[in-house]
Amino acid sequence: MTHAARRRRALEQLRALEVDGLVVTTLVNVRYLSGFTGSNGLLLLDRDGAAMLLTDGRYQDQAAAECPDVDLAIVRDLVGSAADRITGTWAVETHTLSVDAHAALGGRGASATLVPAGRLVERLREVKDAAEVASLERACAVSVDALASLLTTPFEGRTERDLARALEWNMLEHGAEAIAFETILASGPNSAIPHHRPTERVVRAGDLVKIDFGARVDGYHADCTRTFVVGPPDDWQREVHAAVRASQKAGVEALRTEARVAESDRVARAVVEDAGWLEHFTTGLGHGVGLEIHEDPFIGASHAGKLAAGTTLTMEPGIYVPGRGGVRIEDTVLVGETPNVLTTMTTELLEIA
Amino acid sequence: MTHAARRRRALEQLRALEVDGLVVTTLVNVRYLSGFTGSNGLLLLDRDGAAMLLTDGRYQDQAAAECPDVDLAIVRDLVGSAADRITGTWAVETHTLSVDAHAALGGRGASATLVPAGRLVERLREVKDAAEVASLERACAVSVDALASLLTTPFEGRTERDLARALEWNMLEHGAEAIAFETILASGPNSAIPHHRPTERVVRAGDLVKIDFGARVDGYHADCTRTFVVGPPDDWQREVHAAVRASQKAGVEALRTEARVAESDRVARAVVEDAGWLEHFTTGLGHGVGLEIHEDPFIGASHAGKLAAGTTLTMEPGIYVPGRGGVRIEDTVLVGETPNVLTTMTTELLEIA
Repeated sequence: MTHAARRRRALEQLRALEVDGLVVTTLVNVRYLSGFTGSNGLLLLDRDGAAMLLTDGRYQDQAAAECPDVDLAIVRDLVGSAADRITGTWAVETHTLSVDAHAALGGRGASATLVPAGRLVERLREVKDAAEVASLERACAVSVDALASLLTTPFEGRTERDLARALEWNMLEHGAEAIAFETILASGPNSAIPHHRPTERVVRAGDLVKIDFGARVDGYHADCTRTFVVGPPDDWQREVHAAVRASQKAGVEALRTEARVAESDRVARAVVEDAGWLEHFTTGLGHGVGLEIHEDPFIGASHAGKLAAGTTLTMEPGIYVPGRGGVRIEDTVLVGETPNVLTTMTTELLEIA
Repeated sequence: MTHAARRRRALEQLRALEVDGLVVTTLVNVRYLSGFTGSNGLLLLDRDGAAMLLTDGRYQDQAAAECPDVDLAIVRDLVGSAADRITGTWAVETHTLSVDAHAALGGRGASATLVPAGRLVERLREVKDAAEVASLERACAVSVDALASLLTTPFEGRTERDLARALEWNMLEHGAEAIAFETILASGPNSAIPHHRPTERVVRAGDLVKIDFGARVDGYHADCTRTFVVGPPDDWQREVHAAVRASQKAGVEALRTEARVAESDRVARAVVEDAGWLEHFTTGLGHGVGLEIHEDPFIGASHAGKLAAGTTLTMEPGIYVPGRGGVRIEDTVLVGETPNVLTTMTTELLEIA
């Protein structure tokens, strides 16, 4: 889908609000609707379909190259300049727009009245178009290739930090434009900490090693977790891993077109509960992933919606036993008649060296 | 300075506002005042000195470890929970607080009245304490060591992307916790683009190579630019480089305690103007640097303030000749009776291989 087509879809949503246009200030939404990847931009989307990108002088050439089909304004004060250009009633992204920017756009002396747009663009972004799916597929492929490459090297005797750095290097070597987020690489007792930062701890025989990582390609994020064991696993490690693996499989199976979002939460949670580990299942089950590492929809028991084909989500149950260790397994999944796992790598409990 | 001491300084500033407390929602300000480094946190700072950090379950252990001297509340809805805890008049960070969060904190049904705090914490952050200076020194040392290491390898025949990646790897190897920002490595005509993204362009003899890069250590950012030439320089390259170097030297010399911020802009600009290149001097001269890569104060002709000892800033004039090439030289500088350059590496026009 072209950026122009995405803007047309936004305009359709906008009609219900009966406004003269939309002021897009959330940078990732500006990118989605225009293609602009700079760090300072604001998009004015007129009800008639006209679009204008405001940015500063640093991005003049880049904006012209990235957004050939929108008008460009190079200005110092984006919000002030936008305020001068709008009249009537405009929708704004009040969930991210600051109070001060809101006052500058629609406060005293301004010629426009502002109304909340809600998470209109975020909702559109939930369903990925073909170009987005292709980028996500590449990001996921780069990620699992990088992990496979790391697994060919020994873990025992190396620090968490060293292993995490090597994995990140592998992702860049395999074609990532950047790391999607700070790699979590947690060994032994540290694996029980859901969001652990790699330390100087040295990996030892018998450790669980939990790795939550991902590559970014074309602005799109991969998100994947695998948990391994150094040498042969203990019985409890085997048991916990099997429970998480069964839960994750059930959760992924529930990510189908028209299924209820809450259903994937229910089935994945039920498996952990049946296995007797529910008290150590302390994190959420998954979230949308795309231009942001965490985006709509968020999986939870209270989510009232259904899944649309083309939505990309993570499914990531975990069991975390304080002081002993933890297991998480996570895939990035494309919703369809059949769920399409993009992070294609075995979820078995691999014994590593 | 301890986090408690920083909070005391914030309370002193708060007194003028005659409020019952400050709601800190800007994440980097939360970190500055509490030590919390997670991605979701809110700090309530009571006029009596009591401090409470609100975060979610993922960060329970981390917050307890990082913020031993503040109260902790583990909640799902940070803003909603904060609204329940405040009464009277509270100052809020309206420059970053979203309209929706503002309404949740102080809208209908809320028991607190909100007033703008201004950039109160950002102003405090301008002057670095000893711990911050130490982190910035390490970040800068790691950066220049990484560049020096890159310079021992040949440039000619390698792509911009490959060289940028190698430099980033060097920074991690030398002790960076992360890259401070996307490395700009621009060769030949690309060096005329102030904010160029590394491409597959192959570096050739005669190219200017402009490298704007930095490491992050303890959350603190280094920012440094050097421009080299592959093989012997042409006369115009020599001339442009000499003008930028003289401008940068003059600008750095002006970063002294009690000097006017605008003065450093004036003197650096004057050198470029005298050399006849002012039309190609299209970017700002510098900015504060610390927990953010760009923070207060921003150097400009209209800045009315003076420099305080302990402020860290960049000084980064550049001349960009479209289609031919450009030169930028940038240091991270600590303001004092004598300016203290933290990115200690020659600014001469080095000929590289």
